[in-house]
Amino acid sequence: MTHFINSRETNVTEAIEGLVASSGGSLARLDGGPFIRVVVRADWDKSRVAVISGGGAGHEPAHAGFVGPGLLTAAICGDVFASPSVDAVLAGILAVTGEAGCLLIVKSYTGDRLNFGLAAERARARGLKVEMVIVQDDIALPEISRPRGLAGTLLAHKMAGAVSEGGGDLAAVAQAAQRAASEAMTFGMSLDTCTVPGSAKEGRIQPGEVEAGLGIHGEPGAGRIAFQGARQAIAQIAGILAPRMQPGRHVALLNSLGATTDLEMQILARELLHSPIGIQITHMIGPAPMMTALDMHGFSLTVCPLTDADEALLSESTGVRAWPGMRPIKVAAALPLPAGLEVIEPVASDSPANRALLLCACRALIAAQADLNALDAKSGDGDTGSTLATAARALKARIDLLPLADLHSCSAVSVRS
Amino acid sequence: MTHFINSRETNVTEAIEGLVASSGGSLARLDGGPFIRVVVRADWDKSRVAVISGGGAGHEPAHAGFVGPGLLTAAICGDVFASPSVDAVLAGILAVTGEAGCLLIVKSYTGDRLNFGLAAERARARGLKVEMVIVQDDIALPEISRPRGLAGTLLAHKMAGAVSEGGGDLAAVAQAAQRAASEAMTFGMSLDTCTVPGSAKEGRIQPGEVEAGLGIHGEPGAGRIAFQGARQAIAQIAGILAPRMQPGRHVALLNSLGATTDLEMQILARELLHSPIGIQITHMIGPAPMMTALDMHGFSLTVCPLTDADEALLSESTGVRAWPGMRPIKVAAALPLPAGLEVIEPVASDSPANRALLLCACRALIAAQADLNALDAKSGDGDTGSTLATAARALKARIDLLPLADLHSCSAVSVRS
Repeated sequence: MTHFINSRETNVTEAIEGLVASSGGSLARLDGGPFIRVVVRADWDKSRVAVISGGGAGHEPAHAGFVGPGLLTAAICGDVFASPSVDAVLAGILAVTGEAGCLLIVKSYTGDRLNFGLAAERARARGLKVEMVIVQDDIALPEISRPRGLAGTLLAHKMAGAVSEGGGDLAAVAQAAQRAASEAMTFGMSLDTCTVPGSAKEGRIQPGEVEAGLGIHGEPGAGRIAFQGARQAIAQIAGILAPRMQPGRHVALLNSLGATTDLEMQILARELLHSPIGIQITHMIGPAPMMTALDMHGFSLTVCPLTDADEALLSESTGVRAWPGMRPIKVAAALPLPAGLEVIEPVASDSPANRALLLCACRALIAAQADLNALDAKSGDGDTGSTLATAARALKARIDLLPLADLHSCSAVSVRS
Repeated sequence: MTHFINSRETNVTEAIEGLVASSGGSLARLDGGPFIRVVVRADWDKSRVAVISGGGAGHEPAHAGFVGPGLLTAAICGDVFASPSVDAVLAGILAVTGEAGCLLIVKSYTGDRLNFGLAAERARARGLKVEMVIVQDDIALPEISRPRGLAGTLLAHKMAGAVSEGGGDLAAVAQAAQRAASEAMTFGMSLDTCTVPGSAKEGRIQPGEVEAGLGIHGEPGAGRIAFQGARQAIAQIAGILAPRMQPGRHVALLNSLGATTDLEMQILARELLHSPIGIQITHMIGPAPMMTALDMHGFSLTVCPLTDADEALLSESTGVRAWPGMRPIKVAAALPLPAGLEVIEPVASDSPANRALLLCACRALIAAQADLNALDAKSGDGDTGSTLATAARALKARIDLLPLADLHSCSAVSVRS
């Protein structure tokens, strides 16, 4: 076993139990045995339009993590990467739908379209008002007749949830979701595939490659290309999006596919804002994991044109922990350094020999970083080598920049610091 | 390159630019060149006690992600896993500290103790009131004289930040942080080491092993043992914590070390609440990534006794996106399934031959899951095999449970669903 699970058969049920128990009472679940797994708002009274979504597990925090005021009313959870059954979807609909009706927001995959669609028919046969919006925001595979639903689904959740929370009727709720579904465009990219608990990992993407346009189940994308860093990755996606984008302002939803670190996601956010389409990105949701593919080391970028009405719906706060909020982009100048950092200039030599000695010491410390960290780790620590090497790099950079006569000012960055 | 970065030298600066630009104007940064990287609250007026923390990068969202009202006033960011310089810490102190003074919250590592300590001395020499609290919450290496600072640091941040936000003086702010630092106990566990951008990964942990008690820089822990699943992992940690825990209620902070999926973290949360110490866990923070080790596939569990005063400080809402909030544990019974799921019983055969035929079909679908997914992926989809296999597993489970004469009720779960 290579995951923190107990068994493939029980993992989704157990995860839902953990999610609900740690929700502070805001979530509840249906008692549906191992094959009906539905998470609902604990405070729901059926007086407004229910917004229901779901699909296979493995995309956490989607979908159950987005249940709460102003977002989803219920989430139907299948096994990892497998659609929930018709009975499960129907149970979810019946549990939360009153006279105001419900909207099903469905990602465009065969299983989900089939099972949510059949459940909608059975619910309608029982007299309930049910509408369905299918999200197919993927633009990576243009030859496909039914594009896949990806992280753009979150925009449909949020806009529909906000209209429902505000008391809008079923037509208004469905219209908000449909607008997001029709306008959002998403493109994904990953440095590695994902590992399904209990299955072997497919080693499709080689080191040095990035796969462009892949989906959220590890299925292949548009193609693999040489990876040249964050800037180039964003430039490639921006190049695909730019000719398809309308004029005017857009929101960007920057989504981690799972194992991509915050450090990387923030760099990608910076590169997006500096890219040719950055000028049109006035608002951002994330960067954050929202619609993941288990532990995939990748990200997706969704863009959607933004009207004033969209902005109001997407900006509204929710009580939902996983929703990162939409924020306006503000690229402000950095603040000046405070006064008081000046160092009293020490008396120092400007001899070439001392310069050479210092440079030699810096190089030795930089080269010894890994060894020092390893030694240090034995005492339970682990950062001393990196800390010394960083100080040495800073000092060396200062020395390299100085004419010989100015060597004494190097002491402003001492190895001690 | 195996990460979404541009270069090892620029990654922390670029990540901070991305974080600040997507913060909606709530964060600012100092213009300190490549070696002074400080993130501050944009709305800070120095009228209250500043709460400052930081350390090496690679622990995101810590520390810069926790800057905001009710949490940190400033975060000082070093290179990946390397302490920030004395100049950087001093710049942060000078930028946000007024007459009320500041508290430095420092994780117990050689570099951080040294650099934050020297900066504190320089700031005091300039007349500022500076206190320092060192967090050493790791309990995995009892023979170490100075235990490491791990995710328990977040409790110190939150409690100090709440006291500062409420207008408490420096002594009160420091006391709150010290209480968390003194009482929190953390134990980490991981299935794999982390990958430092630009460095090769150390393949120390073999498949089938889990390393207990490791830290947040990939440094070795207390030892490697056979991995037997989420329940056993939590049981092992609970067994270590139980004899050290005081009687009474505790908060648990359940922290992902990076690449651990939400699915796994939620299962670990469930197991924690079902473990022998679960009865004492009345509140939870997370599960969420808070103090990570880049992409490490592990987690840490922090427990801390909870007084009414602690509860008030930890519960207070913040405007900080990365803070998951503290929530009371509420293990409620699942809601009953709604009426309306009954299926009209069809007329069906109870012949052994039909039973065998159905079982055979189920087995074939389950066995074909991967092939069907692969076929399906070629059309841009990818979940149909899993969806069919799940339905087949459900049907097979029903058939297996039935006496022969009751076979007809299998149709309640149809392969179509």
